[in-house]
Amino acid sequence: MTSTTSTGTTTIEAVEDMPSIRIVRDFAATPAQLVRAHTDPELFVQWVGPNSTTMTVDYWDARTGGSWRYVDGPGADGEEYAFHGCFHEVREDRLVQTFTYEGYPDSVALESMWFEDLGQGRTRMHVHSLFDSYESRDGMLRSGMDVGVNDGYAKLDRLLAEGSV
Amino acid sequence: MTSTTSTGTTTIEAVEDMPSIRIVRDFAATPAQLVRAHTDPELFVQWVGPNSTTMTVDYWDARTGGSWRYVDGPGADGEEYAFHGCFHEVREDRLVQTFTYEGYPDSVALESMWFEDLGQGRTRMHVHSLFDSYESRDGMLRSGMDVGVNDGYAKLDRLLAEGSV
Repeated sequence: MTSTTSTGTTTIEAVEDMPSIRIVRDFAATPAQLVRAHTDPELFVQWVGPNSTTMTVDYWDARTGGSWRYVDGPGADGEEYAFHGCFHEVREDRLVQTFTYEGYPDSVALESMWFEDLGQGRTRMHVHSLFDSYESRDGMLRSGMDVGVNDGYAKLDRLLAEGSV
Repeated sequence: MTSTTSTGTTTIEAVEDMPSIRIVRDFAATPAQLVRAHTDPELFVQWVGPNSTTMTVDYWDARTGGSWRYVDGPGADGEEYAFHGCFHEVREDRLVQTFTYEGYPDSVALESMWFEDLGQGRTRMHVHSLFDSYESRDGMLRSGMDVGVNDGYAKLDRLLAEGSV
């Protein structure tokens, strides 16, 4: 699925020959700013997820071998949704981490993210999420992740535009 | 490929529809002993890998959100091989961790391991390694991993038999 807002086009694509999802998105940002947006917890909670929710960090240690946990909510339905994982690799050009939604504690995804410098202050972000089964991958696609992804990146666009990153 | 030693049969299988490897192996051990063999660094270095090598732990923190790194060698060829990852999940019945051989620093696998209690002091261990590409998976299968896996599990059989786990 491809969606375009006034600030950017996000492509979210199921990869058919393996249980993965690829996301490609351009930002008016340098690679370093995008790494910061994904590793600084105070920045991260300001943009990640759908507009309707509030993220709170439980723990966060963004270094190779570190780990993270955050809680989304309580939202309009009064529910909280928690997520955790570990940082396999934190480099200047690449982030690799694991991801579990605690509602499905036995599912896990491996997320790799890298940053292609397009010059003139623009960067193409590539995200590759690999799931431990096709069921997990399809459940994620059906969960409404595109709303969270698109809302989140639009919020990140605004933070970048206002010079907050 | 399936191989049988005097102490156990190990099945190592490429899973065709996703870039993964499944290993199944029975042990004369309880699930708790197998978790210990995989999480206690002093035990782990005594059995992991081929007979020809010596493992040294660089760092090791076997808890959910912890991380690890170990070095194999120097072996007969004078070379050292290093590996690192993070522990996504450490539970009584299940271990999930990431794995990178530092010779290929951009490759990463996600390894899930669970323990099926067969009763009478026997346990069937299931390992599912998911790779970020078919190339990585096939490279691992071609690397001679079956020697390391079979040598390692035979050493673990001996440690279990002598009451060291």
